[in-house]
Amino acid sequence: MSSKTKISKAEQEYWRPAVEQIRQDSEHGSLHLSNQALALVEEFIQRRLYRNRTELIQALSKLSNALVRAKPLMALIYTRTRRVLHFIQTIPKEEKDIERIRTLALEEVERIRRETEEHLKTVARLGARLILDGHVVLTHSASSMVESVFQFARKNRKKFKVICTESRPLGEGRELAVRLARIGIKTTLIPDADICRALETAHFAYLGTDRFTENTFVNKTGSHAISLVAKNLNKPVYVVGLSDKILLKRTYPCRYLPAPAEELIPQNIPNLAVQNLYFEETPIELVDKVIIENGVFELKEFCDRYL
Amino acid sequence: MSSKTKISKAEQEYWRPAVEQIRQDSEHGSLHLSNQALALVEEFIQRRLYRNRTELIQALSKLSNALVRAKPLMALIYTRTRRVLHFIQTIPKEEKDIERIRTLALEEVERIRRETEEHLKTVARLGARLILDGHVVLTHSASSMVESVFQFARKNRKKFKVICTESRPLGEGRELAVRLARIGIKTTLIPDADICRALETAHFAYLGTDRFTENTFVNKTGSHAISLVAKNLNKPVYVVGLSDKILLKRTYPCRYLPAPAEELIPQNIPNLAVQNLYFEETPIELVDKVIIENGVFELKEFCDRYL
Repeated sequence: MSSKTKISKAEQEYWRPAVEQIRQDSEHGSLHLSNQALALVEEFIQRRLYRNRTELIQALSKLSNALVRAKPLMALIYTRTRRVLHFIQTIPKEEKDIERIRTLALEEVERIRRETEEHLKTVARLGARLILDGHVVLTHSASSMVESVFQFARKNRKKFKVICTESRPLGEGRELAVRLARIGIKTTLIPDADICRALETAHFAYLGTDRFTENTFVNKTGSHAISLVAKNLNKPVYVVGLSDKILLKRTYPCRYLPAPAEELIPQNIPNLAVQNLYFEETPIELVDKVIIENGVFELKEFCDRYL
Repeated sequence: MSSKTKISKAEQEYWRPAVEQIRQDSEHGSLHLSNQALALVEEFIQRRLYRNRTELIQALSKLSNALVRAKPLMALIYTRTRRVLHFIQTIPKEEKDIERIRTLALEEVERIRRETEEHLKTVARLGARLILDGHVVLTHSASSMVESVFQFARKNRKKFKVICTESRPLGEGRELAVRLARIGIKTTLIPDADICRALETAHFAYLGTDRFTENTFVNKTGSHAISLVAKNLNKPVYVVGLSDKILLKRTYPCRYLPAPAEELIPQNIPNLAVQNLYFEETPIELVDKVIIENGVFELKEFCDRYL
């Protein structure tokens, strides 16, 4: 493509269907979807649908905004796409060669990817340290980070048990239970309503998160009740994340998109509303420890340092 | 049948399949099933498979014990069948005519039935008084007594809303939501995991019960978490019952029978256990008011007077 040709808006926004797919995807967690978002950013940079740095930044901002709006609770999508943008903005003004800017930007995408890989390994290792022989751990939904903590603990021959909630309406907790059982972890599946009995048995709850805000963490609906019950039964709550998941509400608001009513009841009945929201905020004060790539933090330390 | 003929055990225990049906019945609540139990007791008294008072008491004790073991958490089955037995025992010793004893016992069964009808009406009326215009009420599972409170409030043109939990695994909360919506009550259906968000909106929680013990009430699994969350969010919990539902654990223990694992996961997977228990005990201290036929009691008053 000649650098003189004006690129049409439609051509430049070829990614709309892919972003829509991310919006519709309720199956995958924030790590998976933010990897997809990063791949879209990478592809856009590769495609050369821009003639100079300004056009690249403008077009990439549009893509980033669309991605963030598609999953407003997934901090990783925000922080990772914004990081690429910020990186391009901070390339010295003297650099006018768009091909060179392009190469540097793609290197930054690759760097984010490698760093995340490293961080995930660190978190799995640090998180697994909290699990001791004989522990019974309750988890909710199916956080890929919590799962990798369990996998790491299992590889290190820790003898522990996991209690998984069914996690209605999608049932991803049931699927996690099956995966954990298949790698040899003794697992118990419970309905979402049975969290009191389960927490009386458990030593602590291990939850993932999509986002840390000023005073909450965002996770699958049910996390708030589990954390409150845990607090009342004097069972600690551990939240495993990444520092990239910190995204304050004053930076970007938390928006809750309703999931399909049909997942709870197929018919449409007068006077009957359905409240099917996959995510909720839990007050951070209900958390005991936060595990991120930089270490295992007591709540106060984490809040003082990061929020 | 001649009063001289010895009645075989099999003949006398013709009710075994009917008791087994009550044991298997997870669909109906304790009021319905205790009505069935009372009907079995009535039928047994009518059938004349006994020759004298002693035989009647012995055979009826056996039926009562079988019924109580079938549903060990349903106090009404215990208290109502025991009441009939106790009534027969207290008929003056002078009364030797077994036909006369039979008639008196059947009258007592009828009296229990009429009294319960009266008590249910009273409870619906008293319970509905707690619902004011503008109230949002959360309920869990599908208590027939809570439902009649809502029906009474609706008949009295109260403008209130109800939030129903789905109530996995059987989903009886979804069915209750449909019935309430159909009589014109604005109803919202939520997954069991969403109780924190729901209780933040609700003014109070209204729960039924199968049994009051020394220090707990027995109800569908999920009631404990709801009560704990409600306490933490300063929302009152009201429990609606009958004085007949009081059955202390030192009188008869609470036994939890596991429900089918297939209701949570169809396959049988190594290392994967399922905990599917329909009922649980909630500490009575989490309750604010108890509504029974004798009035609306503050918790302390109820405990002092009845437990």
